[in-house]
Amino acid sequence: MQGNSELDRFFRPDSVAIIGASRNPGKAGNVILENIIANDYQGRLYPVNPNVDGVLGLRCYPSVRDLPEAPDLAILAVPAAGITAAIQDCAQKGVRALVATTSGFAEVDRVGADLQQEILTLARRAGIRIMGPNTSGITSTPHNLVASIYPLGKLKKGSVSVISQTGNFATHTMRWMLTGESLGICRFAGLGNKIDVDEAELLEYFGNDPATKAVAMYLEGFKNAKGFLHTARRVCRVKPLIALKSGRTTSGIRAVASHTASLASNDTIVDATFRQAGVVRLTSYIGLVDTIKLLSFQPVPSGNRVAVLTPSGAMGIVAADACERLGLRIAELSPEAFDKLSAIFPDYVNVGNPIDIWGAALVHGVYQAYRTGMQAALEDDGIDVVYPILTLSPRSVFSTEEFDPEGLSFIPELSRQYPHKVVMVGISGDKAYYEVAKKYLEERSIPVYLPVEPALEALAYVSRCRQYMDAV
Amino acid sequence: MQGNSELDRFFRPDSVAIIGASRNPGKAGNVILENIIANDYQGRLYPVNPNVDGVLGLRCYPSVRDLPEAPDLAILAVPAAGITAAIQDCAQKGVRALVATTSGFAEVDRVGADLQQEILTLARRAGIRIMGPNTSGITSTPHNLVASIYPLGKLKKGSVSVISQTGNFATHTMRWMLTGESLGICRFAGLGNKIDVDEAELLEYFGNDPATKAVAMYLEGFKNAKGFLHTARRVCRVKPLIALKSGRTTSGIRAVASHTASLASNDTIVDATFRQAGVVRLTSYIGLVDTIKLLSFQPVPSGNRVAVLTPSGAMGIVAADACERLGLRIAELSPEAFDKLSAIFPDYVNVGNPIDIWGAALVHGVYQAYRTGMQAALEDDGIDVVYPILTLSPRSVFSTEEFDPEGLSFIPELSRQYPHKVVMVGISGDKAYYEVAKKYLEERSIPVYLPVEPALEALAYVSRCRQYMDAV
Repeated sequence: MQGNSELDRFFRPDSVAIIGASRNPGKAGNVILENIIANDYQGRLYPVNPNVDGVLGLRCYPSVRDLPEAPDLAILAVPAAGITAAIQDCAQKGVRALVATTSGFAEVDRVGADLQQEILTLARRAGIRIMGPNTSGITSTPHNLVASIYPLGKLKKGSVSVISQTGNFATHTMRWMLTGESLGICRFAGLGNKIDVDEAELLEYFGNDPATKAVAMYLEGFKNAKGFLHTARRVCRVKPLIALKSGRTTSGIRAVASHTASLASNDTIVDATFRQAGVVRLTSYIGLVDTIKLLSFQPVPSGNRVAVLTPSGAMGIVAADACERLGLRIAELSPEAFDKLSAIFPDYVNVGNPIDIWGAALVHGVYQAYRTGMQAALEDDGIDVVYPILTLSPRSVFSTEEFDPEGLSFIPELSRQYPHKVVMVGISGDKAYYEVAKKYLEERSIPVYLPVEPALEALAYVSRCRQYMDAV
Repeated sequence: MQGNSELDRFFRPDSVAIIGASRNPGKAGNVILENIIANDYQGRLYPVNPNVDGVLGLRCYPSVRDLPEAPDLAILAVPAAGITAAIQDCAQKGVRALVATTSGFAEVDRVGADLQQEILTLARRAGIRIMGPNTSGITSTPHNLVASIYPLGKLKKGSVSVISQTGNFATHTMRWMLTGESLGICRFAGLGNKIDVDEAELLEYFGNDPATKAVAMYLEGFKNAKGFLHTARRVCRVKPLIALKSGRTTSGIRAVASHTASLASNDTIVDATFRQAGVVRLTSYIGLVDTIKLLSFQPVPSGNRVAVLTPSGAMGIVAADACERLGLRIAELSPEAFDKLSAIFPDYVNVGNPIDIWGAALVHGVYQAYRTGMQAALEDDGIDVVYPILTLSPRSVFSTEEFDPEGLSFIPELSRQYPHKVVMVGISGDKAYYEVAKKYLEERSIPVYLPVEPALEALAYVSRCRQYMDAV
């Protein structure tokens, strides 16, 4: 194991045991192992199950005590009833890090809460660090380790690391990000009931992690608010921190209580804490995914001055409204940008921002109009973000022609030429065309959204992160 | 032509002339005709173009004066330079209704504004009503008439009619609704520069139209605010009225001026007018599409009491937060609903709303858990809206199995059994599974959204419509 933090055992283990490995599809002990295999984990892998000889082509060991070595990390997928014995075995073998996917503890009842306390005492005595219980697992793509209880398959590597109180984001949401958004992540930790490893310690770890460019969090409560505040204040200066903290409202707080046994905090205090800590607070689940995508694919822009390009005057106006509402600015074009645009627009067009490319498209073709407009905006020192909105459809009602996304190659090309500026794209029109264009662009690190607001909402969050980063 | 309103000539014409019909794919005069043909228009169709004998298999007439009859409706797709002559021909022939897709008028310059005034005078003198100019066209699916300058193809019939100042919603957005959301519309009118037919008159027409269940609007300014207010006040009592009025902000107002030559109104006055008029004002483009979908597929609920079903505690909490923020209520379960749910949940689960179906799913299977939970909620008189959030993925990482949506048939079945309650669905997980499930459900009138907020935002708008409707 490389590294010098205790948490390296979780994120950079040279060997992993899966205690409760199973042959039954759909069982956590089966899915975890499938995920690990699908992601080409390079370390030594030890399925543990006393009832079978092998699982998924790997030799199975009856107990962790029978392994040829003390694995750096043990992942527990046994029922709550078997967890004490499993931890005792781990202690005896010398295991020092444990991810407990098992549920049925404080989130369920008093008996579960007592059991949870008991395993914590056991682990402390043996010097074992625990993530969970009631966690969906752990993921570390720089280390090719994906150990989730949910069928994720081969993850893409990404640059945003995620801390989540619940399985939500490491499970179906991550599968959506992967299959629906061409989006990978860097590392993921599911806190679950966080009896030991907590949000503050993970934030510290991801803050020091060179592979992590930004940290996204889903939290329901704090275990260590003071430590979190202290760490966040430092980390927010070097990388964006965004969080969805639920239990904002009376209804939400009631729902939290029965979920992860967290005491929901007073929401006004949470708001103030986040502001002091430099954590940008999101208000929606869907905004979290959209913002992770923008952070993953594009740089943090220097400012909030946006150029919008669209063939639809109406969309331009709606985008301008959205920018102002969200604290973004519709940039004034520089005289140079104005001249470059005027050169390709017919005389009757009032050149301005939002840039209505329709007039130029009629003369020079749609792609040439976007390309010239984008280039003029990217060269303009007064513009930080360029947001073309495309409308894609076949030219004819009766066309069955497939969309050739290569025509859009100028977008990633321009983005690469101006690596400090943000390029993000909105697409409307034909669904099939949209999907082909979205995949093509997102595989080339250009985030694509439905028009008009989602891209701007994500940008507004990222811009607020920049304000903390500028405050160094 | 049936009906007794002047606007019937636009929405129920027995004969239509396309002046400027073209053989060139992509040209407005070609696309309009393709759309009309693709939608099986049942009336008599007359392409007009002096330079060709036929277009798209139809005989072409040199001038509108050569037609065998005065068509109920003429659609103009000639350049601005030819519009005066075309209108003179129409006047001579006895045409009484005209859709002018031609652009290059007040939205461009002073000369255009003068020309616009000239054609209005011409039309008035001849008793011709004009929609436009600078409009994307007109659509009336109950009449099988789709005359858009954008390639839409065969539209689905729907129940929401749309009034839009610009082409936006009748073009790429409508193509998106059709191909991406399995969503049709009832009628559409693009106002354009609205030199004659205006928002108030169209609202009156759609208000009296039995085929129109709700009216959605995109506006940049008012031509006849007083008439609009007067009409809306009456119409909002019988059907939902929603509007996206752009030019809310300084940036937006600047952008409006160069778009449709509207003077943007003081936004505070617009807000007040909408409130008085019973028009629910939306703040986002994407919200308009989402809300049209909900209005199209589901009834207007009696109240705002929501039951959320999800296998993810976190999503339940986020949904509860969103409900409260949006003015919706997380319903208290009735004792009967509580008992029905308790019967299928393991003892350790705290039954409540949001309903975390995971415990029941482990015992009875996922679909059975949703079905029982939904039925209990639908039978509960204290619940108006049932919102299951599904997470769909293959059971195994290595599965290539396709998703069989028939397993979800219980959702439309239950919805049909409780026709006065709203059922809307959120789906996360695997993109391919999502798409198959979405298509299956939306073809059966169950609206599907990405979790968590979009469905609730649309519902919040619809609930506000209900408040005006209750005020009869």
